[in-house]
Amino acid sequence: MAMIRLETPTGLEMSVGEAMFTQRAIRRLDPNRAVSDHHIKLILDAGSKAPNGGNAQPARYLVIQDKEKIKSFGALYHEAWWAKRRDAYGWKGREDMPEGSPYRMAAQLADEMVNAPLVILAFSTGGRFEAMSVLPGIQNMLLAARALGIGSVLTTLHPEVMDRVYALFDVPQQMTFHHCLPFGYPRGRFGPTSRLPTAQTTFWETWGQVPPWAE
Amino acid sequence: MAMIRLETPTGLEMSVGEAMFTQRAIRRLDPNRAVSDHHIKLILDAGSKAPNGGNAQPARYLVIQDKEKIKSFGALYHEAWWAKRRDAYGWKGREDMPEGSPYRMAAQLADEMVNAPLVILAFSTGGRFEAMSVLPGIQNMLLAARALGIGSVLTTLHPEVMDRVYALFDVPQQMTFHHCLPFGYPRGRFGPTSRLPTAQTTFWETWGQVPPWAE
Repeated sequence: MAMIRLETPTGLEMSVGEAMFTQRAIRRLDPNRAVSDHHIKLILDAGSKAPNGGNAQPARYLVIQDKEKIKSFGALYHEAWWAKRRDAYGWKGREDMPEGSPYRMAAQLADEMVNAPLVILAFSTGGRFEAMSVLPGIQNMLLAARALGIGSVLTTLHPEVMDRVYALFDVPQQMTFHHCLPFGYPRGRFGPTSRLPTAQTTFWETWGQVPPWAE
Repeated sequence: MAMIRLETPTGLEMSVGEAMFTQRAIRRLDPNRAVSDHHIKLILDAGSKAPNGGNAQPARYLVIQDKEKIKSFGALYHEAWWAKRRDAYGWKGREDMPEGSPYRMAAQLADEMVNAPLVILAFSTGGRFEAMSVLPGIQNMLLAARALGIGSVLTTLHPEVMDRVYALFDVPQQMTFHHCLPFGYPRGRFGPTSRLPTAQTTFWETWGQVPPWAE
């Protein structure tokens, strides 16, 4: 059977295995190094290729690089991040956060969003149940960025700031906000993540029965 | 800066660009060719590496290869598929489906699910708003399968059959069902998909303003 061989877009030559196994949340971004328009297009093109329900393609993206706009957005992101911690844990500020909390890195991102060189906001033209048509594309974007040496992290906002975010960028009310993705060159490293072994997350033929590779 | 170089898992050498740009829904699966346990593990390992909220890792997978179980599940999938078309369009059967409907291929999958060599059901330990912690992993699984020459398609079920699916596989009630993924070697080809150009799905700095690569 003849397989169609497409040219791989230049820049995405990293193996899919290496991209996946070295993908990690990159929250410390170099504020002084811009992501080129060419790479932004490549990341968005990769996102467009992901599966979506019935090929209706409801995902829409807003690309923000303007420093003043990112500063305004970053202030709203900071407010949203702390509103989520307030709702979930009652924290009002960093002094309420336990020593060694896994949220410390995320809190730093909330501080630093104002300096992100690039933010992409993902919306959809329909309701909030379109996650199935938005998130696979976002994962493609994160993997394409990884292959280009560009870091990112998948984040959300909080209802408290939503009206102001929509107003800041003239987003029509009928659009549904899904995710916020800051992008930039990492100040840290890509590298392995800590995950449960699949032997602990997978069942075989029936619930509770372990896969053959479980010890 | 020294980058950590991890060994790419054997089998996932395809470039991330080729995997993404040739990924497509594969609904016609070879019923006579099994997917090896080694490849199933590789697909699940790839899924585990995707981002998830706060690294809580709520995704759980049920792997089904037993022919009798797949036959029972396939009958429920068929019922669910038509229940969704009934709810959405009032269709009761193939005779109600318009000529040239894009659902014809999906209807064929509904017929053929009983013969799928492998089905993986994705659940989460929490609520249905955990899509953000399940779908990026599913996209990793689909891309890893693509790199291995294994086809799949991202599908759902319908509430009408859910109790019976849970009973068939002894799934605890507190688990939330997310997606159904049949896997197998394709009877057709991988190849390009038809997608909107990103110039039509992307805005620049503010809603309604086109990106630099728009004509």
